[in-house]
Amino acid sequence: MKILVINAGSSSLKYQLLDMTDESVIAKGICERIGIGGHIEGVTNEGCNFSYDIDLPNHTIAFFEVKKALTQGECKVIDSLDEIAAVGHRIVQGGATFTHSVLITEEVEKEIGELCELAPLHNPAHLQGIQGCTEAFGKDKPQVAVFDNAFHNTMPPEAYIFPIPYEYYEKYKIRRYGFHGSSHKFVSASCAQQMGKDLKDIKVITCHLGNGSSITAIKDGKVIDTSMGLTPLDGFIMGTRCGAIDPSVVTFLQMKEGWSREETCTVLNKKSGLLGVSGVSSDMRDINEACKNGNERAMLARKIIAYQIRKYIGSYVAAMDGVDAIVFTGGIGENSEKLRADICSNLSYLGIKLDEKANDEFIRGKGGKISTSESMVDIYVIPTDEELVIARDTKDIVNSLN
Amino acid sequence: MKILVINAGSSSLKYQLLDMTDESVIAKGICERIGIGGHIEGVTNEGCNFSYDIDLPNHTIAFFEVKKALTQGECKVIDSLDEIAAVGHRIVQGGATFTHSVLITEEVEKEIGELCELAPLHNPAHLQGIQGCTEAFGKDKPQVAVFDNAFHNTMPPEAYIFPIPYEYYEKYKIRRYGFHGSSHKFVSASCAQQMGKDLKDIKVITCHLGNGSSITAIKDGKVIDTSMGLTPLDGFIMGTRCGAIDPSVVTFLQMKEGWSREETCTVLNKKSGLLGVSGVSSDMRDINEACKNGNERAMLARKIIAYQIRKYIGSYVAAMDGVDAIVFTGGIGENSEKLRADICSNLSYLGIKLDEKANDEFIRGKGGKISTSESMVDIYVIPTDEELVIARDTKDIVNSLN
Repeated sequence: MKILVINAGSSSLKYQLLDMTDESVIAKGICERIGIGGHIEGVTNEGCNFSYDIDLPNHTIAFFEVKKALTQGECKVIDSLDEIAAVGHRIVQGGATFTHSVLITEEVEKEIGELCELAPLHNPAHLQGIQGCTEAFGKDKPQVAVFDNAFHNTMPPEAYIFPIPYEYYEKYKIRRYGFHGSSHKFVSASCAQQMGKDLKDIKVITCHLGNGSSITAIKDGKVIDTSMGLTPLDGFIMGTRCGAIDPSVVTFLQMKEGWSREETCTVLNKKSGLLGVSGVSSDMRDINEACKNGNERAMLARKIIAYQIRKYIGSYVAAMDGVDAIVFTGGIGENSEKLRADICSNLSYLGIKLDEKANDEFIRGKGGKISTSESMVDIYVIPTDEELVIARDTKDIVNSLN
Repeated sequence: MKILVINAGSSSLKYQLLDMTDESVIAKGICERIGIGGHIEGVTNEGCNFSYDIDLPNHTIAFFEVKKALTQGECKVIDSLDEIAAVGHRIVQGGATFTHSVLITEEVEKEIGELCELAPLHNPAHLQGIQGCTEAFGKDKPQVAVFDNAFHNTMPPEAYIFPIPYEYYEKYKIRRYGFHGSSHKFVSASCAQQMGKDLKDIKVITCHLGNGSSITAIKDGKVIDTSMGLTPLDGFIMGTRCGAIDPSVVTFLQMKEGWSREETCTVLNKKSGLLGVSGVSSDMRDINEACKNGNERAMLARKIIAYQIRKYIGSYVAAMDGVDAIVFTGGIGENSEKLRADICSNLSYLGIKLDEKANDEFIRGKGGKISTSESMVDIYVIPTDEELVIARDTKDIVNSLN
């Protein structure tokens, strides 16, 4: 069974075609600058790659370009879209409506639309992706929605209710939802497997560290807390986002700078975080480089991210009353061995012992255990694979239709 | 040496007269409804008490009423204000300007005034308290300013810099300041003393839990982190305050409810927290009562406060890489044995063992150790005494003048 996984952003459309007999990737690529130009590039499992500019005025046109890339030319991997059994879509915000993946129907599309308010940057783009897909594949091809926050739906109310007037939870569904669910799900399952244990029997903290970052506490096989909240702005310092802060900072800046709500959102989402503190870049690689050159604010940014992550880990150890494993994943989690070392070097009260050699080795897609055999907590680097989670869920739902 | 300690709020003025030869309280009381009516009540160390309404249009008039209460009538404790060696004032916000207590000069008054922007509810009232005091005592009586955040000035930048654009730290001094410093200082010193250790040799987490609450991590005798930030709104759930949250919650509510900056501040400071979640009360005693009657939202509020405090403790254990003692103080910390038990019952990974009998016993001003002898971490209830810290600092400064 072949499954196409789609991740549609406001001006981009990522795709990945998987062969579910062995869960291998047949081909993957991305359409970029949709609506403001257009570019597509991709690669197949046989190493055939392509990259060209082409006018992509909307997601539907982008979809037809993906279809062409898959079925025509020298990098073609299938003869026709009929070979694809189903399409799985990543949907950022499923609210409290969707607690697990679902077959997309008109009703589901409508409900994803109603959740746009809670994810104004993401859900509208996802809907365009679904609509483009319907036009390219026809109405009969099963499409499945896999929600970024579904994995987090097991959180208890004390973790998801914000301490604001309860009426706003009832009126607008303001609560902690969490994101990166497919990633946390994938790496926690992989962690249990690598430990030779059932996820239900271990306490795991998964750190998805990328441009956007979130940390999740998993106990009894269920998420009990996660750092992202109503939106992906919550939690700790990220590339350009500030994370949870004293709300007075927000209103104080609105007073001093005269910002509108929109301007406030822009600064906190796009100009804060590692970029805001360092003044150098939102990218951990640039920060590391600047640190080497003695840039003090870059060093401060790196101290803050290590410190805040260490505190989050500590808080989730307390939330679960212990921890068996900690997992690092995502662009930074998989590649910044320095940051992992900084975080773990100050958690000796948990009996954590980092295997420095393994830690230095497991970068650029290579994963494995980075704690020593004496360590009381197992530490892993596990490259994430959100597309595979989406493909698996899609396969399961399609199979259940028959 | 007799020291008068003053805590001036926007419509109140608390006083306490201490005899520093044995640090005993000679008399204490409060003026309330200043500017909107007027009431004064007080009690002496000999049990003489008074309570009456009287017009108190401003802090100066209130001061003259305090003078009358101390020097005249049946509850008089001194013959004249000359017996008072100095006055110590609690000042909430000393910014980064004041890292320790100082003798109040014209220059100091000016600087406290310049910090009003960072504490608009508190510093203007403190200035009125100082001015009233000057009028009542004359210019020659030494007055000392003891700052709520001075004890926290040892925090490293990774703890006090918010992950927003650095320019706002430079431009407006937006950073974590912390509050309740005199309380955290008092109980951490007392904790070390009760353990028979030097504060410099232990890692302590002090939980000041009252209407406003904050938690502080103290290592090597120095504060390394504290939960309150730019303002006392930061941290975790309080009586009516929300603590740190996803900043998107703030902007989302501004969009949906059309709130101004002022309305936003009012809801987050006055209508959130235990009150907002429970819909019952901001007072822990009322919450406990409602829980007994099966009120679900009161039970949720209690779960949230215990859970958030447990997470804060966990994060500070990680920040210090261990903990030797945890202290509970403040109205809730000293009196809610149920909450203390809830917090400590789920920290077994730290080897914490609560002595339930002692925990039940140490309430209403009675303090002591509430962990068993087998506990790996010592847990204490220590009634706080901010006035004594202020009096001690005032005495030290006055002595250094001679």
